Amino acid sequence: MITLTTDFGTSDGYVAAMKGVMLSIHPEARLVDVTHQIEPQDVMEAAFVLRTTVPYFPSGTVHLVVVDPGVGTDRRAVAVRSGKQWFVGPDNGVFPLVMDDAEPDEILELDQPEVWRSDAPSTTFHGRDIFAPVAAHLDTGRDPSDIGTPVEGLRPLRWAMPITDSHSVQGYVAHVDRFGNCITNIRRQTLVRTGLNDENANPADEAQHTGDTISIDDLPALKAYVGNAVIRDLHRTYGAVADGDPLLLFGSSGFLEVAVNAGSAAELLNIRKGDSIKVVFQNDAAAG
Amino acid sequence: MITLTTDFGTSDGYVAAMKGVMLSIHPEARLVDVTHQIEPQDVMEAAFVLRTTVPYFPSGTVHLVVVDPGVGTDRRAVAVRSGKQWFVGPDNGVFPLVMDDAEPDEILELDQPEVWRSDAPSTTFHGRDIFAPVAAHLDTGRDPSDIGTPVEGLRPLRWAMPITDSHSVQGYVAHVDRFGNCITNIRRQTLVRTGLNDENANPADEAQHTGDTISIDDLPALKAYVGNAVIRDLHRTYGAVADGDPLLLFGSSGFLEVAVNAGSAAELLNIRKGDSIKVVFQNDAAAG
Amino acid sequence: MITLTTDFGTSDGYVAAMKGVMLSIHPEARLVDVTHQIEPQDVMEAAFVLRTTVPYFPSGTVHLVVVDPGVGTDRRAVAVRSGKQWFVGPDNGVFPLVMDDAEPDEILELDQPEVWRSDAPSTTFHGRDIFAPVAAHLDTGRDPSDIGTPVEGLRPLRWAMPITDSHSVQGYVAHVDRFGNCITNIRRQTLVRTGLNDENANPADEAQHTGDTISIDDLPALKAYVGNAVIRDLHRTYGAVADGDPLLLFGSSGFLEVAVNAGSAAELLNIRKGDSIKVVFQNDAAAG
Repeated sequence: MITLTTDFGTSDGYVAAMKGVMLSIHPEARLVDVTHQIEPQDVMEAAFVLRTTVPYFPSGTVHLVVVDPGVGTDRRAVAVRSGKQWFVGPDNGVFPLVMDDAEPDEILELDQPEVWRSDAPSTTFHGRDIFAPVAAHLDTGRDPSDIGTPVEGLRPLRWAMPITDSHSVQGYVAHVDRFGNCITNIRRQTLVRTGLNDENANPADEAQHTGDTISIDDLPALKAYVGNAVIRDLHRTYGAVADGDPLLLFGSSGFLEVAVNAGSAAELLNIRKGDSIKVVFQNDAAAG
Repeated sequence: MITLTTDFGTSDGYVAAMKGVMLSIHPEARLVDVTHQIEPQDVMEAAFVLRTTVPYFPSGTVHLVVVDPGVGTDRRAVAVRSGKQWFVGPDNGVFPLVMDDAEPDEILELDQPEVWRSDAPSTTFHGRDIFAPVAAHLDTGRDPSDIGTPVEGLRPLRWAMPITDSHSVQGYVAHVDRFGNCITNIRRQTLVRTGLNDENANPADEAQHTGDTISIDDLPALKAYVGNAVIRDLHRTYGAVADGDPLLLFGSSGFLEVAVNAGSAAELLNIRKGDSIKVVFQNDAAAG
Repeated sequence: MITLTTDFGTSDGYVAAMKGVMLSIHPEARLVDVTHQIEPQDVMEAAFVLRTTVPYFPSGTVHLVVVDPGVGTDRRAVAVRSGKQWFVGPDNGVFPLVMDDAEPDEILELDQPEVWRSDAPSTTFHGRDIFAPVAAHLDTGRDPSDIGTPVEGLRPLRWAMPITDSHSVQGYVAHVDRFGNCITNIRRQTLVRTGLNDENANPADEAQHTGDTISIDDLPALKAYVGNAVIRDLHRTYGAVADGDPLLLFGSSGFLEVAVNAGSAAELLNIRKGDSIKVVFQNDAAAG
């Protein structure tokens, strides 16, 4: 199974060209579109969308991710294995964000032109000429050593981490979904650590992130400044507040979301993608 | 085969998450998107779109329909069988509209958490956690008794039926398609009965609706007031009037449509979704 | 494998209805959407999009192309074979454009109602009632003689060819892609012949078009007037100019494109679909 995530839109023939290439190599491939509506070249948005979908795909899935502002530069082309799933695309920071900084199990630089569509790929469309064929070959079960050469270290994406101090976290709205929910770049773990004012908290990141080892009920009171609102409610479900009331919650992506129960937070609170959000804890450190 | 109809849009990862869940349960499932562009929470629009597609799918198809303004409330989750097709989604009125009030052959309340994605589904995304898994299990041929418990009576959707009196029908534009055709909520049967001024007409609804037992030629003259136009022409085909002229016809959905031959009725007649339409018959009752 | 290209959009149920019809006939069919976002009735845009996708699909693919301004008129319905691929749709000029005026190997007029969805197809939706069933039957390997009767000569599409004189080519922008690249109706061959001022050039069209037998480096200097810009750069890759600089290049479609490296030509140069472009060569003839 191969999923596709791009910023190509669906008005042009680019996505279908990639599918034609893949189905020429592997006629039995199952192709599933994630989205082609990523804002052009918005790598971080691609990562957010993938975080909400990758966990629901089975072992063996190959995720083709082509948001490629650096096409034609010397950015690497990679295939990355995390557990039993593969990711294929440019090494531009998207994969560390998707994997939440977990170390990948295998990184291959795509340097085997014999599995490309042509050994002289276009300089403008590596999605069709390199990434799609590689994804198709991986999906057929071809040996990874035919695809590329093991390398170390994906390019990290650092330019969008929230800023924290002893009692506050400042981030931004990284994605607004169709319902107007505003998903920020603030991870559960970051908010919890700051709220507990504990820089030495047990760094069992993944457990804190996906699990619930520290309850949000244990956090001090907080105020979130975002759009035209100040929000004091951090809950587990939309329904914890009245219809039309705003709240904060951790969505399925593991990031802090600003929402309005039965309404559009983006519209009602006047929030747009890129807007900043500041969460201030009312704890002792802040008071002192 | 499973079709998908939602209001999720295609910019987020929600649709792909549902597909990942279904393909994890049933890797061989055929998935066909109907649309994900239903206006958020517009149950009636979902029903209109489904009416134009369901008849063309084969026996055994499972239609997953997730337009769910009541998620998190106590609205029921159901699987409904009509003939040899299944419908899965929230019990919010969409299915009676799709089936044109025909009695379903089987209604199951989805109360078997062991076939859900997790026995503690999220409060915000039953599409992924309940409806998608149930649809996938049905598509594998799993026994319906594993899915839910038989119940009676779907929730009817009443708030959008046209208002009739002895010689007129007042309805509204429920859907504007990409070509500007304006599909109303006025069913063929409703218009025919009113035109014939016969409240005791043989209620062989389906025959009158899908068939043509009463010809539109037998109806009295009429005027339809809609947008900035008064339309007197009710025909079977666009081409029955000159290019650029407006007309009424019964579209493939079985509802009265306002159209312009070789043009956009929405644009040329200034009609928008939600606009009212009043059809007045020039029959004896009206004259009297 | 069957690809779908239409102007139906994805908000209505029309595309799904066609898929339901095809899967009822041929449950194992692989369906691949090219796009449903063609501007309503824009046959030339459909041809441009198809030119960027058809070459990447394998032998045996059936391309269903329903952009049908003439539905209900006496325009022919055809299936066209070019090599080992089939094209199915209305005979409105789209196929000669896709095939770049190459002679098709077989043209069938669709006159066998027994393979249609109903032998009384609707007058408004031949996509569902005629073209989809025919495509499905072809994809099952059914004998073409069951589908239609051999005829000669597709309807040519002439009304959009560029105008040339001894030293200039005037065309227009036929398609703007999601990245703002502006694809014109000027073919490589047309520009090369005009630039070389050689009306008797070896008409090995295809070689000149898809290959590179005449290098763009052999062309005289040129100026292209388009939008608010005068462009003098004709290159092979976006990266041949600095970020933000405009250039001309021949894209994967074989047509002249106006682009801006790392930017949107449509936005930065104020170009819209339909705008004219004039390319003037600074050769001796021009100077003379």
